[in-house]
Amino acid sequence: MEFWPVVLFSGIFAILFAFWLARDVLSQDKGTKAMQEVAALIFEGAMAFLNRQYRTIALFAIIAAVIIGGLIGGLANDPGLGVRTSIAFLVGAFCSGLAGFIGMFIAVQANLRTAAAAQRSVRDAIIVSLRGGAVSGFLVVSMSMLGVLLMFWLYGGFNLVPGQPLLSGPALVPFSIVGFGFGASFVALFAQLGGGIYTKAADVGADLVGKVEAGIPEDDPRNAAVIADLVGDNVGDCAGRGADLFESTAAENIGAMILGVSLYVVTGNTSWVFFPLVVRSIGVFASMVGILAVGVGDVSDPQRKLDQGYWAMTIVAAIGIFAVVWIMLDQNYWFALAGLTGLLTSVAFVYITQYYTAGGWRPVQELARASRTGPATNIISGFAVGLESTGVTAVIIAIALGLSYFFGVQAGSLTPALATGGVNPGLFGTAVATMGMLTTVAYVLSMDTFGPITDNAGGIAEFSQAPADVRHITDVLDGIGNTTKALTKGYAVGSAALAAFLLFSAYLDEVKLRENLTSFPVDLSNVTVFIGGFLGLMLIFLFSSLAIRAVGNAAGAIIEEVRRQFREHPGIMEGTERPDYARAVDITTRAGLHEMILPGLLAVLYPIVVGFVLKAEAAAGLLMVGTMGGILMATVLNNSGGTWDNAKKFIELGMLKGDGGTVLGKGTDAHAASVVGDTVGDPFKDTAGPSLHVLIKLLSTITLVMAPLFITR
Amino acid sequence: MEFWPVVLFSGIFAILFAFWLARDVLSQDKGTKAMQEVAALIFEGAMAFLNRQYRTIALFAIIAAVIIGGLIGGLANDPGLGVRTSIAFLVGAFCSGLAGFIGMFIAVQANLRTAAAAQRSVRDAIIVSLRGGAVSGFLVVSMSMLGVLLMFWLYGGFNLVPGQPLLSGPALVPFSIVGFGFGASFVALFAQLGGGIYTKAADVGADLVGKVEAGIPEDDPRNAAVIADLVGDNVGDCAGRGADLFESTAAENIGAMILGVSLYVVTGNTSWVFFPLVVRSIGVFASMVGILAVGVGDVSDPQRKLDQGYWAMTIVAAIGIFAVVWIMLDQNYWFALAGLTGLLTSVAFVYITQYYTAGGWRPVQELARASRTGPATNIISGFAVGLESTGVTAVIIAIALGLSYFFGVQAGSLTPALATGGVNPGLFGTAVATMGMLTTVAYVLSMDTFGPITDNAGGIAEFSQAPADVRHITDVLDGIGNTTKALTKGYAVGSAALAAFLLFSAYLDEVKLRENLTSFPVDLSNVTVFIGGFLGLMLIFLFSSLAIRAVGNAAGAIIEEVRRQFREHPGIMEGTERPDYARAVDITTRAGLHEMILPGLLAVLYPIVVGFVLKAEAAAGLLMVGTMGGILMATVLNNSGGTWDNAKKFIELGMLKGDGGTVLGKGTDAHAASVVGDTVGDPFKDTAGPSLHVLIKLLSTITLVMAPLFITR
Repeated sequence: MEFWPVVLFSGIFAILFAFWLARDVLSQDKGTKAMQEVAALIFEGAMAFLNRQYRTIALFAIIAAVIIGGLIGGLANDPGLGVRTSIAFLVGAFCSGLAGFIGMFIAVQANLRTAAAAQRSVRDAIIVSLRGGAVSGFLVVSMSMLGVLLMFWLYGGFNLVPGQPLLSGPALVPFSIVGFGFGASFVALFAQLGGGIYTKAADVGADLVGKVEAGIPEDDPRNAAVIADLVGDNVGDCAGRGADLFESTAAENIGAMILGVSLYVVTGNTSWVFFPLVVRSIGVFASMVGILAVGVGDVSDPQRKLDQGYWAMTIVAAIGIFAVVWIMLDQNYWFALAGLTGLLTSVAFVYITQYYTAGGWRPVQELARASRTGPATNIISGFAVGLESTGVTAVIIAIALGLSYFFGVQAGSLTPALATGGVNPGLFGTAVATMGMLTTVAYVLSMDTFGPITDNAGGIAEFSQAPADVRHITDVLDGIGNTTKALTKGYAVGSAALAAFLLFSAYLDEVKLRENLTSFPVDLSNVTVFIGGFLGLMLIFLFSSLAIRAVGNAAGAIIEEVRRQFREHPGIMEGTERPDYARAVDITTRAGLHEMILPGLLAVLYPIVVGFVLKAEAAAGLLMVGTMGGILMATVLNNSGGTWDNAKKFIELGMLKGDGGTVLGKGTDAHAASVVGDTVGDPFKDTAGPSLHVLIKLLSTITLVMAPLFITR
Repeated sequence: MEFWPVVLFSGIFAILFAFWLARDVLSQDKGTKAMQEVAALIFEGAMAFLNRQYRTIALFAIIAAVIIGGLIGGLANDPGLGVRTSIAFLVGAFCSGLAGFIGMFIAVQANLRTAAAAQRSVRDAIIVSLRGGAVSGFLVVSMSMLGVLLMFWLYGGFNLVPGQPLLSGPALVPFSIVGFGFGASFVALFAQLGGGIYTKAADVGADLVGKVEAGIPEDDPRNAAVIADLVGDNVGDCAGRGADLFESTAAENIGAMILGVSLYVVTGNTSWVFFPLVVRSIGVFASMVGILAVGVGDVSDPQRKLDQGYWAMTIVAAIGIFAVVWIMLDQNYWFALAGLTGLLTSVAFVYITQYYTAGGWRPVQELARASRTGPATNIISGFAVGLESTGVTAVIIAIALGLSYFFGVQAGSLTPALATGGVNPGLFGTAVATMGMLTTVAYVLSMDTFGPITDNAGGIAEFSQAPADVRHITDVLDGIGNTTKALTKGYAVGSAALAAFLLFSAYLDEVKLRENLTSFPVDLSNVTVFIGGFLGLMLIFLFSSLAIRAVGNAAGAIIEEVRRQFREHPGIMEGTERPDYARAVDITTRAGLHEMILPGLLAVLYPIVVGFVLKAEAAAGLLMVGTMGGILMATVLNNSGGTWDNAKKFIELGMLKGDGGTVLGKGTDAHAASVVGDTVGDPFKDTAGPSLHVLIKLLSTITLVMAPLFITR
């Protein structure tokens, strides 16, 4: 039985659903004239940034495609492979860029309409913002499904050579479409880095020069950097995250298909290769149920509605996974349990992140208390919380990995055909768990994009001086958006961890295939593996340093500009003169793009150089240890940043008490200390952390694509 | 030819030299009555802390010895092995404790005499303080040499069973004395943790409540925590570091001897086993030359004198290594090159650390400039510098490891006997490099202890209101002491990294021996190895979190107490009443000891539990990836802390310029921002970082000793 039509159908269906959502959002009321004016400024700034950014990235991508094709074609002495890899790379890069662009385009439209809807009710506002986010979510998933399917078809995945079906088509093509994943990660890295640097440089710059130096409130129209700050939410959180999750789903689809190849070769059943894409189809329908469930009934408690949608989706997905396993994988229920493990891991990450970053639990409260003795203790405490949060994160990942591997091994004994010929069904168990976890990606991305949309809606309301009740609704939604954004980061880390092992195994399969080896141990007691691993871990630290520093450098440029405007145009402060927003946006754009280049090139070139000099085993060490390090470092950066942010909010809400029960709220030293922590956390959680998610996947796709280079002796 | 008499002789000689130095220090002038009073307070506080701390540690050590002996004896079904391991553990623990105790005892005496000598000249002050530090340096080295030799003799290392010399004595005993190394690391961990928490809690507490809240200068007698702060320098930096370097040298001696066993078995020459101890003897003499060289000639530039001593020692050590290789290792000059690689690595680390933490280079200056925009940018920039410093650190380590391995392989082809029977001469090359690096340990430890001695001498001078010129001399020496302390940390990280691979290989040899395996691959594509590695890396993050948080908790207790004294005794602030120093010391002691327990137990129990549950391969993954992570994390913590500290000093020296060239010195916002960074860096660089050095070695010794437990199926 062929399953590709299921993939094709659900991919197209997801696109149609996204268009329906987009039409729905665009048909909403656009609010007051003042709102539309701000929104136009934001739209203009965001488009200007994306235009320039995409031109830079396109240039890099084309150069990279030529070099990659040349190197692989030349060194592996296989020009055809070089050309195919280059083309796949460019298609992946294009789709990744498109995913980011569309996500941002709709988000900018949804911002304004959310602000307008907030004039009517919470219900209208939440539906508009969530649907705006969902456009991006569904497009990302459908494009990754259809893109992989297209490449599979183009490169002859359906051509079974008569007489040797197990040596053609599905057995070979997954290896030759890894370029698609690499292209996607390549663009995602630069998109996330550039957007992340832009958004936090604008944020930090606007805060330091506005709130701290000039003493004016956040999003105050007198601050020249405020539009750049609002633009940043869109280009960093929407466009960056869209590209990130596109490359995740693409890379993990391809990696799981590669693992499926070894099972196909043994069983002759293409289901093993198509299974990952079919599970994605389940995810499309489950997420759709989740999104539509949010609009049903009373919406007075928006967080609860989002949770209900999440649970509705999880249940549908669980049932779907069982059904697909039953139909495709020989009724082997052990694999369904592996898939369920992945799904539950996703749920676990949602709760871990809430514990570490929401105000109701120990970490945020402890951090707020530490702010009473000043910024130093706030920083020490926040950093300690971030480090601590790696503990439960790692344990959950270890359990999920161990358990799904165990289920896979059990599955192997249930379907005896799997136990033959060097096949490892345990490994496929971890792949199924990864697929299980990623079924929810469309819904999670919708919730994530919901965050910056509501944040921007708040900014538009503030900037256009909308009435207090409108501002109140956007504030409530903004608070929820902060939580959903944090959740997505936890989810991205967790899925990256599960996928890491799968992509690593795919790399080993690739090396084995190319070198005709039956086994390829990556032995840590081999000195080159050790050195490769050590250098891989170092990459994570160095990359984080560059990403964090980039924000500092770019923020410096903005601070100078806003200071200059205040100094040369005293009318701005008195409210008689309008600041030159466009110039601030332009300077931020330049600085952001300039600063993204160094960390971006480091991330791309470093693994290639190490792999080329120290060869395939060292590259495997680099990939593996670097991935472990990236997961934990991203956890530290995301969670410490989130905790600092929410400790500040906790204090601003008047929930911190001093000696004798006095409230230590805004304007106190404790609040000032918490603002320092929040500022430190900005580049951690919104630039370095999310870029590390992409970097981890990039390491996998780079090593997969460049493997021919590493084994040339 | 037997080489053990060389070891015995030089061990005894080093002890005699240490006694001579101690007598010299103790015979010096004890200064004014006021100085002696303060010193007596410090002495009393330090002894009170050590007494309590050692009682706690002794209790833990005895419990641990019983459990370890029982587990190994019972599970491996070899009661003799259990008893031998327990005894070796206790002897190692005792020696480690003694090393810390003596180091601190002499340091406390040297503090006072340095302050007194500063009344006369820089020359006298530097000689007293350096010799005080050297007592500890030489005792540590001699005790580790003699201790290992003693255990080797006691456990029958010299008994060659007639007819089968290659299956007895030297071929087996190194494995059974690993308990000595474990005992040493066990005590060192608690000593470094307890001391590190004490010293930084007192420091942070004294600063926050004195400098920040009450606005009085550092080391002001009105601050009740000031004596605790001075005590802290001794118990943290002197006692802790002494125990740390004792366990390093002991563990690395044993590890290198274990690697030598496989070469002994092939060649029948015991030189391979004794080589590590003989190289230590070279180190004793080389360090002696270095120490004595500092006293010769003009001492107007103390930093230059210390550097001259360092270079004198390095040259003697290099010649000595060549000589020893020539005599012991069959004139195989390739091994001498490996040793030289280690020695040069040590030099490289000295310069890297200087670059990252001294005021003359980019990092400190950049950080000082970042302080102009407030504490948030100071923290961001300092953290970025710490992360960045892992780059060159990792590259140097990778080159040293790769190069010494290469030299070892070359050595193997020069001495054909080495190429037989599964022996890996490349590995022995890395062991020789480690030994080469560690030849300098006595001198480095002397320089390190010099730091807290001069720091305390400054405190005594300030507290006893000595004249300004005395204070000036101690200030100059204190500044140099900060640099030498930072250098030691770089050195400790570098040697830990080189040793890691050696100790890891020793573990694999141990497992192979016990399981009768010819190979034991630690394959990262094996899911349990991956999980073990991931959990190992997580341990580093979690342990750092607990260590950092412990300082915060303990500091809180001190702050409360000093505030209470100010509140209840207004006379203190007016200078009419003396604060209750003893009570502050007592509270710090309690808090420090209480807080050391959780991270300490985590470090000890976690690897045992993981190894027991997931077995030997996972333990190997944990050891290896945990070590990589520990090295890099310690680098981040040490260097960011050092840079923050020196950026503050840079500003205090008036070297930071604002807009238009105005000096931004003490009392400016930039200075306040830099103080925040310095406080954040305190627990990083003096608690968590140094404890990580010990943790890395502890992981090795634990897995070595507990190996029988991990392979019971």
